[in-house]
Amino acid sequence: MKIITSVALAALTLSASNLIEKTKEAGLKPIPSSKTELMKLIDNPKNHITDEKVELGKKLYFDPRLSKSGLISCNFCHNLSEGGDDGVSAAIGHKWTANPHHLNSPTVYNAVFFDAQFWDGRDKDLEAQAQGPMQAAPEMSATPEHVEKVVTSMPEYVSEFQNAYGKDVKITFEKVTDTIGLFERTLVTPSVYDDYLNGDDKAMTSAQKNGLETFIDKGCASCHNGIALGQSMNAMNVTATYKYQNVGDFKGDANGMVKVPTLRNITQTAPYFHNGQIWSLKEAIVEMGRIQLGTKITDKEVSSIEEFLKALDGRKTDIVVPQLPASTDKTPKPSMN
Amino acid sequence: MKIITSVALAALTLSASNLIEKTKEAGLKPIPSSKTELMKLIDNPKNHITDEKVELGKKLYFDPRLSKSGLISCNFCHNLSEGGDDGVSAAIGHKWTANPHHLNSPTVYNAVFFDAQFWDGRDKDLEAQAQGPMQAAPEMSATPEHVEKVVTSMPEYVSEFQNAYGKDVKITFEKVTDTIGLFERTLVTPSVYDDYLNGDDKAMTSAQKNGLETFIDKGCASCHNGIALGQSMNAMNVTATYKYQNVGDFKGDANGMVKVPTLRNITQTAPYFHNGQIWSLKEAIVEMGRIQLGTKITDKEVSSIEEFLKALDGRKTDIVVPQLPASTDKTPKPSMN
Repeated sequence: MKIITSVALAALTLSASNLIEKTKEAGLKPIPSSKTELMKLIDNPKNHITDEKVELGKKLYFDPRLSKSGLISCNFCHNLSEGGDDGVSAAIGHKWTANPHHLNSPTVYNAVFFDAQFWDGRDKDLEAQAQGPMQAAPEMSATPEHVEKVVTSMPEYVSEFQNAYGKDVKITFEKVTDTIGLFERTLVTPSVYDDYLNGDDKAMTSAQKNGLETFIDKGCASCHNGIALGQSMNAMNVTATYKYQNVGDFKGDANGMVKVPTLRNITQTAPYFHNGQIWSLKEAIVEMGRIQLGTKITDKEVSSIEEFLKALDGRKTDIVVPQLPASTDKTPKPSMN
Repeated sequence: MKIITSVALAALTLSASNLIEKTKEAGLKPIPSSKTELMKLIDNPKNHITDEKVELGKKLYFDPRLSKSGLISCNFCHNLSEGGDDGVSAAIGHKWTANPHHLNSPTVYNAVFFDAQFWDGRDKDLEAQAQGPMQAAPEMSATPEHVEKVVTSMPEYVSEFQNAYGKDVKITFEKVTDTIGLFERTLVTPSVYDDYLNGDDKAMTSAQKNGLETFIDKGCASCHNGIALGQSMNAMNVTATYKYQNVGDFKGDANGMVKVPTLRNITQTAPYFHNGQIWSLKEAIVEMGRIQLGTKITDKEVSSIEEFLKALDGRKTDIVVPQLPASTDKTPKPSMN
């Protein structure tokens, strides 16, 4: 019986080369398996990736002293242990303040592949993005001067900046956020989906391959495409209104366009949608079909798509918990107010 | 000139064997260099250390979903990147609430060597301690039921508990905190001071050795002794009243006794004292002399002691940022209230 089912499934599945072709035609792209090619994609041409910069960027990413309170690091909302986000509906920051627009923290993993950052796409890259939450009153609530003072107060940080950028480096707020952005660029998580598209036919299960086809056939890839499966800006509420549209006041950018979130590691990044109101991946799939594609996605199709989405759970590079430099007498004191 | 100074210093220093003897007579002990001996000291006889339990304990230690808000893990206040504490005066927890007694978070590193846990020494070991902050309203604010529900909602956690404790394991709140305690037992940071006491005469500099002598001669080791250099309970305000005694209402245990904090990694764990009011290590040394020993510690002695304290900066084992299991439909939702 099992054998017959497998045979039947195999018959229903497109041949490997056809499905790969179909996937690429739908605008979906794998993370390249070649390190050189990947580096070309993720590098910052104005500030090339080096080991020294990435290691320093990691420390800064994990350093809560960059915030006004000394308690909130980048990793607080973009937790590398939790799929790269915080698992709550609306981000919580300084003084336990929720995001005033009730916006959900997006994952930092694979965010390098986005054309634009933030739900309203207002920043073009991770370096620009990093400046936002650090200064936002309900997030890290730090002034650029605070950040500069914190970093320059510790000789170990100063010498790491010199090692990374040369002896004459000026440690500015932008240099700090640029370095954090560079670390974030490396947070790429290839999965069996990429292995499959890169030529390993056995990397995905039949159920996952079927799910990929369903995903394409239902039209999901019209927005969730590119390497991130969610790369650019798109209209929302195309065929119906999102059922929790009234939670928060977010309406997208000036043209009502919204940054399409990545589907990579999506099983780990509930709750979903810009205001984090949907906790179940199945419900998110159904609601997307209803409001974006004007189509009912059947239970069977939902399960199939979900199987495919599981294939996007990526392999994360081991990151060693950094040991931060000790504060000095010159380090600004934390303030809880 | 430099040579003469070195020679002069060497003359002032006790011979290696004498200083080691003097140190041991003062009640100071090294972290054993033998792994077997160390394991005997840190193991929990009722719940032996295994790799599976420690790896699971690490995940739980880093998992913010154990808290009511889903935002506060053990690592929030006992940050392994920051010397094992949070770098703020009074701990901040759920709803941005400060510790009601204005108590400072002690470091988790080497806490296994304490005879008692908490500033008032109310718990005997790390396993018992772990139950406190998890339930305290101004800290993680979780009920035992919440913690059990979170953990048992994720099949990956359940199977890790089974791997660690056997198939019939009952995943209770105590099992969770016991496992976290076991991970914390492994957070031991030997330093050049231990290398020196364990026989490597060149491990400490002459200045550090002189500092160790000053430390003993001034009487610091009368409280700061044992492996942790701060192991047991002692009276406070012995010869004068701590100058910030009025910040918070902490008066010690029923007998006015206070847990002596460890001096290991002390350069990384400012601010100092139970209410975190002193930010400078030099000032802390002077104040301790005044209120505990009834002695004026001169600038020169302060610098010498500080040199010794730097020798207590320990080597931290590389800890890989854990990848936590994904929440499921059964995982309790975070609550910010």
